[in-house]
Amino acid sequence: MRVLITGVDGYLGWTLAIYLAQRGHEVGGIDNYARRLWVGQMGSQSAIPIAPMAERLSAYREHTGQNLRFYRGDLTDYNFVLNAYRSFRPEAVVYLGEMPSAPYSMVDVHNAVFTQTNNIMGTLVSLYALRETVPECHLVKLGTMGEYGTPDVDIPEGWFELEFRGRKERALFPRRAGSWYHQSKVHDSNNVEMACRIWGMRSTDVMQGVVYGTRIPDMGEDPTLRTRFDFDQAFGTAINRFCCQAVIGLPLTPYGKGHQKRGFLPLSDSMQCLTLAVENPAEAGEYRVFNQFEDVYEVTQLAERIQRVGSELGLEVKIHPMENPRAEAEQHRYNPDHQHLLDLGYRPTTDMDSELRIMLADLMAHRERIEERREAHFPDIRWDGTRRRSDYLSE
Amino acid sequence: MRVLITGVDGYLGWTLAIYLAQRGHEVGGIDNYARRLWVGQMGSQSAIPIAPMAERLSAYREHTGQNLRFYRGDLTDYNFVLNAYRSFRPEAVVYLGEMPSAPYSMVDVHNAVFTQTNNIMGTLVSLYALRETVPECHLVKLGTMGEYGTPDVDIPEGWFELEFRGRKERALFPRRAGSWYHQSKVHDSNNVEMACRIWGMRSTDVMQGVVYGTRIPDMGEDPTLRTRFDFDQAFGTAINRFCCQAVIGLPLTPYGKGHQKRGFLPLSDSMQCLTLAVENPAEAGEYRVFNQFEDVYEVTQLAERIQRVGSELGLEVKIHPMENPRAEAEQHRYNPDHQHLLDLGYRPTTDMDSELRIMLADLMAHRERIEERREAHFPDIRWDGTRRRSDYLSE
Repeated sequence: MRVLITGVDGYLGWTLAIYLAQRGHEVGGIDNYARRLWVGQMGSQSAIPIAPMAERLSAYREHTGQNLRFYRGDLTDYNFVLNAYRSFRPEAVVYLGEMPSAPYSMVDVHNAVFTQTNNIMGTLVSLYALRETVPECHLVKLGTMGEYGTPDVDIPEGWFELEFRGRKERALFPRRAGSWYHQSKVHDSNNVEMACRIWGMRSTDVMQGVVYGTRIPDMGEDPTLRTRFDFDQAFGTAINRFCCQAVIGLPLTPYGKGHQKRGFLPLSDSMQCLTLAVENPAEAGEYRVFNQFEDVYEVTQLAERIQRVGSELGLEVKIHPMENPRAEAEQHRYNPDHQHLLDLGYRPTTDMDSELRIMLADLMAHRERIEERREAHFPDIRWDGTRRRSDYLSE
Repeated sequence: MRVLITGVDGYLGWTLAIYLAQRGHEVGGIDNYARRLWVGQMGSQSAIPIAPMAERLSAYREHTGQNLRFYRGDLTDYNFVLNAYRSFRPEAVVYLGEMPSAPYSMVDVHNAVFTQTNNIMGTLVSLYALRETVPECHLVKLGTMGEYGTPDVDIPEGWFELEFRGRKERALFPRRAGSWYHQSKVHDSNNVEMACRIWGMRSTDVMQGVVYGTRIPDMGEDPTLRTRFDFDQAFGTAINRFCCQAVIGLPLTPYGKGHQKRGFLPLSDSMQCLTLAVENPAEAGEYRVFNQFEDVYEVTQLAERIQRVGSELGLEVKIHPMENPRAEAEQHRYNPDHQHLLDLGYRPTTDMDSELRIMLADLMAHRERIEERREAHFPDIRWDGTRRRSDYLSE
């Protein structure tokens, strides 16, 4: 199939481009290198070095035997997007091209407005451009499990049977996001559902859990084919931060009580899932939602795992909880469904410990790059709008 | 109280400024005259002539004995909004300053992006500016009953007890809007709820039905104090369009089957309700939702009423259904709650027939202004993205 990836220069996008090509798909990509800029703004850099796009594209051609058709531009620019779709004529668009960080969106009013404008309007522009050029195209849109928040009830996959005062109706399950970034994904979901309903478009909205991993087997051994790996307070997930902390001898820092639960899946399985969505498109007019993760862990359990696996690799790892800069439940129920992808044939291929061994080994090879940006590990973006570095919590 | 109205140059905003002053409140206002521009873009004008703001402000002073503190600027401009709030120090902001038309938002990608950017980012900017300057201020935010769509179950007021697989949780009732404009209000609601939850702000989100009427008694007889009244396909509601059609001898044009049901309330009662919300603020951290309307009517019932009242005034009025340019249910259940405002003391003060008599008489005095923009009555903005004038349906 002809698959266009927006955000192809990012962590998931670059990996997916390689994964899809190895499975015989024709791949195109859009990016404006914004992620490189945002991470730079946070005073950080990718722990794994990544090459400029021109070098990436040559290595890609050599490795996969095909050209990646790359369009450089801004997803909120309708004319650019329209022409990219008109040129590539995708059968599926995997829409990963958004600003993906909750803390970045909470920095100040500028970042809040930027995040929501960039994410919501980018998606809206793509809905129009797809309708105009390739209305049958399947939009695989990356959302986040964070759209649901942490309700005290089970979480279905997007839709549920609403029962109210003795009557029933199929409805979107209530969302309750906890940052302007997560809200931007809720707004996207609402917009995309409407485009399917009134325009007959087809979309899979992927409520993805936290993805971890430094590589997939399809990347081979060429370092130019590696994907980025962030560890700063904004673009590094807890698991990324913990791995990098372990590598440079900083204590791992769960926020607050550390009982926050999230769904996780390894990078290779995220690729498997997105590809299943691409290869099994939604029907015309269908807006379907996949909850995409494998296992639920508490943040403190993650830290303990990394401590254990780290010690096998000779790292001495401490855990020291830190004041939580976010407003979030630190102890809560979490029981989301995740059946749809299993029904399509998703089979988990790896376990967390094996993946952590690879990650820590890969990161240990770049210890100096992490050490160089040591300060990026200390969170100071607070949900109350102030900027103050979090302290370690006394034991 | 010190009440700041955003969108004070608009239909509701100008009326509310007069209503609040007559009740002893100190009033400020923000506007950038965008509504005048948008209606002009639709090839139309207000049926009731409205004066430039400078003249409005003199007449206001003469009539109410107080100055309206007017700030001219764009609500998406953080610096401007921050300084207006810092200068006025409102105890309540009544946020009416959004692009309010579903058809306008559906014209094309430009209007869709403009509508969502203008509305969502304006509200987001105000949340930040209020938190910075007057965090105790009560935000009375205008939403729309259209956020809910037309589900086959009752509609509560914003929140409900979600029951799912034997567990319960207080949650936002699922929304399902039918235009980019209505979606912008859904996104606003989600953002405002989050600001209350994580920042302890206080807000009343008003899911308002369709407001009708040309004046309120507090305006007195000075024509400079009148508020605008639109009848074009984008900014005129069905009831406004029907009244103006009746006045110039065009048939009234319900769309499609004409069994669309909506909640309605007269202008004076909308003022009463908004004032009740202002005078009875939400608690710190509280996000409450009022469904604000008085009666539910089908569109065809409205047309028949206007036909009857029109004939009493000597107008010969025909009804001729027109092809529906929108994608919407034309026959559906509609049973929304609207108890919260009644609990605060809301008492309907007028009935639709009396109000229609005043409206038609006011509009008959400006028959030429409506006749001059006769073409504005014929809808051509279609939900499928094309632009084609709707035909009358054969009987």
